[in-house]
Amino acid sequence: MSVVVDFSIFPIDKGISVSPYVAEALQIIKKSKLTYQLGPMGTCIEGDWNDVMEVIQQCFENLKQQSDRIYMTIKVDYRKGHSGRIAGKIKSVEKKI
Amino acid sequence: MSVVVDFSIFPIDKGISVSPYVAEALQIIKKSKLTYQLGPMGTCIEGDWNDVMEVIQQCFENLKQQSDRIYMTIKVDYRKGHSGRIAGKIKSVEKKI
Amino acid sequence: MSVVVDFSIFPIDKGISVSPYVAEALQIIKKSKLTYQLGPMGTCIEGDWNDVMEVIQQCFENLKQQSDRIYMTIKVDYRKGHSGRIAGKIKSVEKKI
Amino acid sequence: MSVVVDFSIFPIDKGISVSPYVAEALQIIKKSKLTYQLGPMGTCIEGDWNDVMEVIQQCFENLKQQSDRIYMTIKVDYRKGHSGRIAGKIKSVEKKI
Repeated sequence: MSVVVDFSIFPIDKGISVSPYVAEALQIIKKSKLTYQLGPMGTCIEGDWNDVMEVIQQCFENLKQQSDRIYMTIKVDYRKGHSGRIAGKIKSVEKKI
Repeated sequence: MSVVVDFSIFPIDKGISVSPYVAEALQIIKKSKLTYQLGPMGTCIEGDWNDVMEVIQQCFENLKQQSDRIYMTIKVDYRKGHSGRIAGKIKSVEKKI
Repeated sequence: MSVVVDFSIFPIDKGISVSPYVAEALQIIKKSKLTYQLGPMGTCIEGDWNDVMEVIQQCFENLKQQSDRIYMTIKVDYRKGHSGRIAGKIKSVEKKI
Repeated sequence: MSVVVDFSIFPIDKGISVSPYVAEALQIIKKSKLTYQLGPMGTCIEGDWNDVMEVIQQCFENLKQQSDRIYMTIKVDYRKGHSGRIAGKIKSVEKKI
């Protein structure tokens, strides 16, 4: 039932540096106890759809208190019956090269 | 409080033609009564975060009954206090060109 | 050989309203004579890979003269031997609902 | 002048497992000598726009020889005058949490 999600969130009205806001989102993700992996262009989160979406909503609600314009991108990969995919997907590719 | 969301969903395990599955998602979006606009690469939906995410989840649950691997992309634009933005954003750009 | 591309570009360092910059990108796309369709969350462009990527690069080069931080999202759908897809993809879905 | 790009590519007409095709793309990226980082949902590549886009095109051309329907997502972050950002962006966030 689990999904792997690549998630980016940032404010557009706060000027050139957005890392303080990204760091707040990451802290919310960490607190959720879901498996995650921070990347240069987004954070991958793995879990049940409802759990992942709840964390994304928390990140959004938190940033809304500080910003009047927010952009988010979400990529979702669902594969039936698989879990441990944040590590597994990378291994599956790496062993083929 | 409303967001504008660009949403794409399709199965990866059903071969080259995915329009039957996209059509099912579109029907779910239509039934929701949210404002939407079908595009060549995704459907834009406008509404409260919870309402939009519920529709997206319905599309996902529906496709999960038919497909074992699903890909989704979601782009979200939140702007405080604005609504009617599916039409408004396009007008705002068009009047400048 | 043609692709359908959904393309968004905006500056992060210009404050809450980005439509003047989006309008400049749209003008560049219009001048290219490629088939396009403006949407609320991006513009769809259809054409040969090289032609589409050249237009996207022009939009990027133009915005770089005005902004020090730029975000772009690009979704690409390639289907062998098909063209006229900006209209065709929408029709294919609409006739199924 | 450099950009950081998150790039995903996969065929839609090859069934549920796409890792062999992702592995081929990764090999092309490796050969390019650009800085990259493989993630669960895409590969981040850093370099000049032209160099990064040339690698992405090579991945696309390679997959076109095997697949009749291909999907790609690309997210681009440009920041003037900065380089070493694949490592730098992560550090910038991590030191704030």
